[in-house]
Amino acid sequence: MVGKSVVTLDDVSTADITDLMSKARYIDSHRRQVAGTCSSRVLATLFYEPSTRTRLSFETAMLRLGGKVIGFAGAQLSSATKGETIHDTVKVVSQYADIIAMRHPKEGAALVAAQSSDVPVINAGDGGHMHPTQTLADLATIDARFGRVTDLTVGLCGDLTFGRTVHSLIETLCRFGNVRFVLISPNELKTPRYVLDRIDASPTCSYVEATDLSAVIGDLDVLYMTRVQKERFFNEDDYLRLRDTYILDEAKMRLAKPTMAVLHPLPRVNEIAAEVDNDPRAAYFEQVRNGMLMRMALESTLLGDPLPGYAQSKEVQA
Amino acid sequence: MVGKSVVTLDDVSTADITDLMSKARYIDSHRRQVAGTCSSRVLATLFYEPSTRTRLSFETAMLRLGGKVIGFAGAQLSSATKGETIHDTVKVVSQYADIIAMRHPKEGAALVAAQSSDVPVINAGDGGHMHPTQTLADLATIDARFGRVTDLTVGLCGDLTFGRTVHSLIETLCRFGNVRFVLISPNELKTPRYVLDRIDASPTCSYVEATDLSAVIGDLDVLYMTRVQKERFFNEDDYLRLRDTYILDEAKMRLAKPTMAVLHPLPRVNEIAAEVDNDPRAAYFEQVRNGMLMRMALESTLLGDPLPGYAQSKEVQA
Amino acid sequence: MVGKSVVTLDDVSTADITDLMSKARYIDSHRRQVAGTCSSRVLATLFYEPSTRTRLSFETAMLRLGGKVIGFAGAQLSSATKGETIHDTVKVVSQYADIIAMRHPKEGAALVAAQSSDVPVINAGDGGHMHPTQTLADLATIDARFGRVTDLTVGLCGDLTFGRTVHSLIETLCRFGNVRFVLISPNELKTPRYVLDRIDASPTCSYVEATDLSAVIGDLDVLYMTRVQKERFFNEDDYLRLRDTYILDEAKMRLAKPTMAVLHPLPRVNEIAAEVDNDPRAAYFEQVRNGMLMRMALESTLLGDPLPGYAQSKEVQA
Repeated sequence: MVGKSVVTLDDVSTADITDLMSKARYIDSHRRQVAGTCSSRVLATLFYEPSTRTRLSFETAMLRLGGKVIGFAGAQLSSATKGETIHDTVKVVSQYADIIAMRHPKEGAALVAAQSSDVPVINAGDGGHMHPTQTLADLATIDARFGRVTDLTVGLCGDLTFGRTVHSLIETLCRFGNVRFVLISPNELKTPRYVLDRIDASPTCSYVEATDLSAVIGDLDVLYMTRVQKERFFNEDDYLRLRDTYILDEAKMRLAKPTMAVLHPLPRVNEIAAEVDNDPRAAYFEQVRNGMLMRMALESTLLGDPLPGYAQSKEVQA
Repeated sequence: MVGKSVVTLDDVSTADITDLMSKARYIDSHRRQVAGTCSSRVLATLFYEPSTRTRLSFETAMLRLGGKVIGFAGAQLSSATKGETIHDTVKVVSQYADIIAMRHPKEGAALVAAQSSDVPVINAGDGGHMHPTQTLADLATIDARFGRVTDLTVGLCGDLTFGRTVHSLIETLCRFGNVRFVLISPNELKTPRYVLDRIDASPTCSYVEATDLSAVIGDLDVLYMTRVQKERFFNEDDYLRLRDTYILDEAKMRLAKPTMAVLHPLPRVNEIAAEVDNDPRAAYFEQVRNGMLMRMALESTLLGDPLPGYAQSKEVQA
Repeated sequence: MVGKSVVTLDDVSTADITDLMSKARYIDSHRRQVAGTCSSRVLATLFYEPSTRTRLSFETAMLRLGGKVIGFAGAQLSSATKGETIHDTVKVVSQYADIIAMRHPKEGAALVAAQSSDVPVINAGDGGHMHPTQTLADLATIDARFGRVTDLTVGLCGDLTFGRTVHSLIETLCRFGNVRFVLISPNELKTPRYVLDRIDASPTCSYVEATDLSAVIGDLDVLYMTRVQKERFFNEDDYLRLRDTYILDEAKMRLAKPTMAVLHPLPRVNEIAAEVDNDPRAAYFEQVRNGMLMRMALESTLLGDPLPGYAQSKEVQA
């Protein structure tokens, strides 16, 4: 993967994803050893729209590897840069930086950037809010909880029509195989046909659709919650009627397995009650930490900077 | 204090304040030795409203200790983060950072953050412009000039009704004791009763109130100037009549002791004439430097990172 | 130059410019050796208006020398700082930082800052878009391509009336001497008299004026392109008639020498066709990199931090 850009997870093989998860675990338990891995490197975060959580994750990842960070976010952007083509901006920035993380409101911007850049570009979101490192964070969290991302019953709950984060997770889990999906949503917000087709195309994966979280929560190893936006409903009555069905609270948690892991891409509005935060099954804040660890793994890998001691640790395991 | 948050100075004992001042002096004379104290640390500056001077002080402090900085200021903030609860934002950021400095327009925000965070939170201002590290900067400046923060006549001049910086300084000096306060303000902007009560409650402190700076300046060891805002007056005539009384210029400086120290929390408007800047008694720019040094002392202390050589230097003194 | 500010290139002697170019070349081939040159230093970038490209260049320069960066850009600026005098802001910031790069919309702001500051100030643009480090980037690029900045035919094309970048480059090349300028512009946008006088005052420099790029491109060693803004023309017909004359494309490149270097201060709009980017004579992206290298040379020089190995390398050459 050295020197490559990551626009979507199609740019990363399943073997590479497995290696990134292995590296993330290694980094977490060897923070001091890896603290100088990228000491001569500069990351540029080019955020044409602000996305605080994502930007800080990319930046912390590089800083904790010993690298440096430059960049802009939203209103810091000058009018000259606003008028410039993405091609030229990325060409300029690749004179300064060794790697770029870019977020842009327009679909396809990351691909243009990757094609223009002299250094690796990581898509931190273009158009929709889906981006490959969010899915890497999700996978790393499942992996951290279960030691695997296969042989699991994975529930996805909420807006399954527009939730691109969910589509990307389903697609990527299908590449690993052996997942039973439980797709929990109101009828208005069901999973699109092409995503269901993707599951069907995987010989070892299957799905069921459901509308009631309480009825199926007991079957789940993983529950991936997403926000149900009011604007998605045809009328307010439907919204009010359905809303509580998709709110995770202590009462519903009592119906779930003791080993279930609750994930959420954050920010949440009210779809997970605050009372769930202290439940050991709540994994959404460690998902944030895993996102940072996966970005550390990804940044160092794309830069070709080996993690000190990692190769030896793999040999010992083998 | 390791691992604790500092929302107000009530969170810091007088012994701890004394130790912080001692550390600030040590840091100032051992810049190179302390430059790696926090080398594996990340500070997050979460500035929901911009406050350039304060943010740069916190950031420089961490950088000069060898740590790294992430954060946002004002318009860099994404709408998602704006809509998120302080609880969730701080939980997320404490996955990235080892310590947080937060500024927020709403009173009480820092307390909520401290209760939510997994890492220490320092209040960099919530609601009013008072914040504990401003008072620490004030104390360190008095300490640097006089070698003590007691046995002094301290004049506070300007808006004593709404100036929360002044209230915090009075309150903290009363904890150390042996201070004679001279409270200089127009009648419209006198010190509130509860602050006077605080002085009265200190057996070794006392106060007098005055309206004319020139009449009392000759008694002062310390003169703490604050801005008199036009909006505070009932009518413009009063403002125009009184304004000059509270402007410090060379003429008034000639009436003061040769050892007096002039402090100001900055920014100033016109309440200290530029001609005073070159007077050796002007201490307001060294107050800025002392603020940075106290933040270095506070950050390293809350993180539990010992300053190299400091413990030994204390033993030698003892 | 140690401890001095650079408001214009009048603050830098030709001998110093030559030394900076020599340092920039050394830095480029000794990236690892110089990576700790300014390890105890802090740069403050005070950008009262955003200028992404310039800010990132100054910041990367300091980071690649091992230093740290604080600062603000545009909307990050707090209202208090907005209302404060430049004098006070710079006095405050010079308590934190060892060197300042400032950009300000008002002409003269950099001079005020330099006079107020306790540390060196580099003008990153005030009023117009001209600033001394842009010209240093231009010179370093000519030097990198030809091994000299003299004995060259230098064409400048586009808006020569309002293009302050071009005026500064002409002025500085005249200080070195032995340059034949070809000034290519529409009649509405000819070089001002005082700039022509400056060339005439140099005994070894000369100029010709032209309106047709194609007619003269074959004579040029350097072609410095600038943008022709529509707003500069009296009527749209003239603009449309003349526009293409000043667009550099492959057809015109075929008329040029194989060794010609094409420079542009960026951002471009459409005055250089994208097809030219892959021509080895296109030097505008390496001009960006040279800008960063010259800022590394300048920052380390003003701070008095010697580049490891540089002095010895000069002795070997001598």
